[in-house]
Amino acid sequence: MNFMQKLEQAWSSSDSLLCVGLDPNWQKIPDHLKTLPEPVFEFCKAIVDATHDLVCAFKPQIAYFAGMQAEDQLEKTLNYIRETYPHIPIILDSKRGDIGATAEMYAAEAFDRFKVDAVTVNPYMGQDSAQPFLDRADKGVVILCRTSNPGAGDIQDLEVDGEPIYQRVATMVNRHWNSNHNCCIVVGATWPEQMATLRELTGDMPFLVPGVGAQGGDVESLVKAGRTADGRGLIINSSRAIIYAGDDENFAIAARRVALETRDLINQHRQ
Amino acid sequence: MNFMQKLEQAWSSSDSLLCVGLDPNWQKIPDHLKTLPEPVFEFCKAIVDATHDLVCAFKPQIAYFAGMQAEDQLEKTLNYIRETYPHIPIILDSKRGDIGATAEMYAAEAFDRFKVDAVTVNPYMGQDSAQPFLDRADKGVVILCRTSNPGAGDIQDLEVDGEPIYQRVATMVNRHWNSNHNCCIVVGATWPEQMATLRELTGDMPFLVPGVGAQGGDVESLVKAGRTADGRGLIINSSRAIIYAGDDENFAIAARRVALETRDLINQHRQ
Repeated sequence: MNFMQKLEQAWSSSDSLLCVGLDPNWQKIPDHLKTLPEPVFEFCKAIVDATHDLVCAFKPQIAYFAGMQAEDQLEKTLNYIRETYPHIPIILDSKRGDIGATAEMYAAEAFDRFKVDAVTVNPYMGQDSAQPFLDRADKGVVILCRTSNPGAGDIQDLEVDGEPIYQRVATMVNRHWNSNHNCCIVVGATWPEQMATLRELTGDMPFLVPGVGAQGGDVESLVKAGRTADGRGLIINSSRAIIYAGDDENFAIAARRVALETRDLINQHRQ
Repeated sequence: MNFMQKLEQAWSSSDSLLCVGLDPNWQKIPDHLKTLPEPVFEFCKAIVDATHDLVCAFKPQIAYFAGMQAEDQLEKTLNYIRETYPHIPIILDSKRGDIGATAEMYAAEAFDRFKVDAVTVNPYMGQDSAQPFLDRADKGVVILCRTSNPGAGDIQDLEVDGEPIYQRVATMVNRHWNSNHNCCIVVGATWPEQMATLRELTGDMPFLVPGVGAQGGDVESLVKAGRTADGRGLIINSSRAIIYAGDDENFAIAARRVALETRDLINQHRQ
């Protein structure tokens, strides 16, 4: 089963567009876990166990693992998800991109070493920098388009013949990069009107939507702007608002509560 | 001593603008090293030892290490360079970039974990995505501008008010991102006329120049287009053409020969 099929099934079986982002920040991991041999893995495992039936995907952010030399605990987390919840797609958020020969190595990192279902990719270096990812037809390639951060517009909103760069990227991905039907784009939750335009430009292409929760994106407006005709088409990520909802022994219960609220809030506006 | 000072000194002491890229591809590592406990480290160490007096910097490409789960051998390579040749700046080529909180972790990866002097950064997400790197005033931040790969123009050459994006990026970096005077930009060797324009736009800002050697960039034209008034300003990277010049027990000797030729060829055109 390829990434897109797995995503479709996960949308259905969980009745959810919610993706939980795994961003394990050492400062915010509950103290009682820090005495264990693998606190980062234990933290992620508890979040995964508490939210697995509420999500359409998990999205580990590799920077948090790499920053503390914990690639081994990332691998253990990924193995745990794959073995325990094999129906849930995993999107590795690493925003890679480089010349072809090097991008081959990044594709190997994501798909062969970490064995994830999809990976985020930065489009600035053009199609050949994404090609080694795109060529993996069974895998998802999630390309940055209009991101959710304050400075996103510095480049993405620059206008080319009256059209912002991010729309050019979306059209380029849709027309030229998606021959294996394995592309998604990243569209920040903070810009619903831009999301509506991107939905028009890309048909049913799935959007990975960061910026809900800690980053302040409004759920109703983004869902109405970004959903496809069947009320899906969105992978709505929330990381900090869910995984740090609590900071004590009950953190996983708190995470589940916020994940459930977020899933249900999203579902109110899907149809 | 900060990165820029270290770079200035390395340009002088080695009389070289050459940077050797450490891209250890398992298929190309000489067979006699593969029976050793740490072949990737041994390969990199031999290249470093054979070329250290000919270079102004080393540039390890993290993708090659990450693709084969060899971050430990990257760390060992970096430690070896730092301890044995402490005057040579190390540029980690990782092309990172993400929202602020995540970029903090990538800055920690590069500067605290790997302890390198500079890192490559992708600008597509805008200034706040680069800020955690820029804030490290003692470190170098090498921002992708006009890359050397075939598809580079897909986004970088799109014109905004008659000016290509890559020039916008150069001006933005020069005017707004460089308050700590720690920025460099990446300018592919394959585009000398673009390099000349970028030199005009950015004063004495150092350029990291990939694309010499295996990627086919012409040394004379790029040096004449990109050098500063004092015949420096360039970090000219060659990876494959040097490190895979030989494929047997004499690979390091072959690497030194090509590195020496490349340094001397560059030096012919500096003044």
